[in-house]
Amino acid sequence: MPSRLGRRGLAIGIDIGGTKVAAGVVDADGRVLHEQRRQTPGRDPRAVEQTIVELVKELSADFRIWSVGIGAAGWMDLSGSTVLFSPHLAWRNEPLRANLERLLRRRVLLANDADAAAWAEWRFGAGRGQSRLVCVTLGTGIGGAMVMDGRLERGQYGVAGEFGHMIIMPNGQRCECGNRGCWEQYASGNALGREARELARADSPVAQEILKAVGADVDAITGAIVTDLGLNGDPTSRELIGDVGEWLGLGLANLAAALDPGQFVVGGGLCEAGDLLLEPARRAFARNLTGRGFRPAAPIVRAALGPRAGMIGAADLSRVSARVRD
Amino acid sequence: MPSRLGRRGLAIGIDIGGTKVAAGVVDADGRVLHEQRRQTPGRDPRAVEQTIVELVKELSADFRIWSVGIGAAGWMDLSGSTVLFSPHLAWRNEPLRANLERLLRRRVLLANDADAAAWAEWRFGAGRGQSRLVCVTLGTGIGGAMVMDGRLERGQYGVAGEFGHMIIMPNGQRCECGNRGCWEQYASGNALGREARELARADSPVAQEILKAVGADVDAITGAIVTDLGLNGDPTSRELIGDVGEWLGLGLANLAAALDPGQFVVGGGLCEAGDLLLEPARRAFARNLTGRGFRPAAPIVRAALGPRAGMIGAADLSRVSARVRD
Repeated sequence: MPSRLGRRGLAIGIDIGGTKVAAGVVDADGRVLHEQRRQTPGRDPRAVEQTIVELVKELSADFRIWSVGIGAAGWMDLSGSTVLFSPHLAWRNEPLRANLERLLRRRVLLANDADAAAWAEWRFGAGRGQSRLVCVTLGTGIGGAMVMDGRLERGQYGVAGEFGHMIIMPNGQRCECGNRGCWEQYASGNALGREARELARADSPVAQEILKAVGADVDAITGAIVTDLGLNGDPTSRELIGDVGEWLGLGLANLAAALDPGQFVVGGGLCEAGDLLLEPARRAFARNLTGRGFRPAAPIVRAALGPRAGMIGAADLSRVSARVRD
Repeated sequence: MPSRLGRRGLAIGIDIGGTKVAAGVVDADGRVLHEQRRQTPGRDPRAVEQTIVELVKELSADFRIWSVGIGAAGWMDLSGSTVLFSPHLAWRNEPLRANLERLLRRRVLLANDADAAAWAEWRFGAGRGQSRLVCVTLGTGIGGAMVMDGRLERGQYGVAGEFGHMIIMPNGQRCECGNRGCWEQYASGNALGREARELARADSPVAQEILKAVGADVDAITGAIVTDLGLNGDPTSRELIGDVGEWLGLGLANLAAALDPGQFVVGGGLCEAGDLLLEPARRAFARNLTGRGFRPAAPIVRAALGPRAGMIGAADLSRVSARVRD
């Protein structure tokens, strides 16, 4: 399937995050030939559009571009024309595709960033060849996506895959989505930072290394800092990463109960912790998988494409979509 | 799609439960022309097979039968040849299809009972025309199934849809699956019975009507009894049904986050409670749906085919499958 999908030229993929915009020229084998990064220009939709336009123009100057794909943290409607809602940007029912197509005078594909990353991992990364793939991207929250029988499963209205907002602890931690106890409040980079800050504020002696790393500024503790400390051997940071890993495994067991995928791919910044995160996750998964012993257990593997997955996936989706639409 | 699927003659559908075996002759429009019921003959696989064979022979005597489908509470492998595991029957890696095909000298389709019921609701019942349908059947536990783009989504190994075993309350109520806090421990007929027994054992004055209904034999309290009392106006039973409904709505909101279906169909014995159950479920769903206000909310509707859904679905699946295999 992959070899039949992507035989036509180069595509630009742009991944729009809350802080960074990453753009690249991607070939049909998922290789990034050229790359640019910018700060996200605030939350103003017009400014973000302008940045996208500039990046496309710059990247088009040196390459013959077949198609353009945009991945963004937000809900795209099923037709891919409108951003229904974006948590970190100011898009609310924004006709982003039409705006960009007018400005660029070319067709543009819009995708959710987690969908784009999952597509990239399925096409070129850790999920290749899987017919039932579930991907989670652990960053600020949890991005989720499914690739089934060679296509993204996006639900009835395009908003499937919000695994991070499945409630796993009624009356638990408050979530930005407006609920309490969402999975991403327990298994994400933000959760790791919050747990570490709480520990540090309790003035626990075991938090000593963490406090040292931030010059005793508790508010400066982030999941990334704890991840680094854990990789450098701090036992407390390793414990905290392991706790998050257990929540990760529990939630993946829930997804296995519902979806029975052939494989889980785990990506996102928190994955830098590697097996400090994934081994506890695998243990908790094995312990909580319903029907364990009477069913195959889907492997939990680390994503292969790193932070470029969204860019690569958006580019490739635009190439596939362009073939379908032409 | 439905009209193209089912144009060939009559099918026998057999629904095997822990206590009853229901068999019927079903036409291509999902009508049950003739029906028989038996007690489930204990847990011995041979005895269950014998009962199936007898029922097929009896029903075949007066009708020209095109195909035979069996629905059972258990995990079928993806090929539909083996029962991997059945909670209420003694099947463990049982080659049920081959056994039955040898005994009957005809082809047999095996399906999970929740899959069969969902298929029936999608073809002939409350879920007709839906392209993303999620069904839950509330009885002893929660049976779950998905019909997507006109086919059952069964996962990589055939065991998808075990929504009832998603953990919704870590360290919560013990579940027969070996875990704690599974959704079906909070949103099922069994959960309703357990809550009522607990209330009665606490000797609460509000449990008076419930105790009266069972002659003060607390162990005799079941979800079905509480449902009847609720329908007859007992306020405590209504509260308990409402509590279960809230858990139902919370879990459906979780499924909407993950799957974004166009509709939920809720069936099973507990549905006899009607809006006593479904209104609290709808309220909890609306309150817990992530992204509420920025997305359409899938309606939660009651199943239309009642206890015959499994039989009708098994029959219809066998007809569709026979067309594919011939």
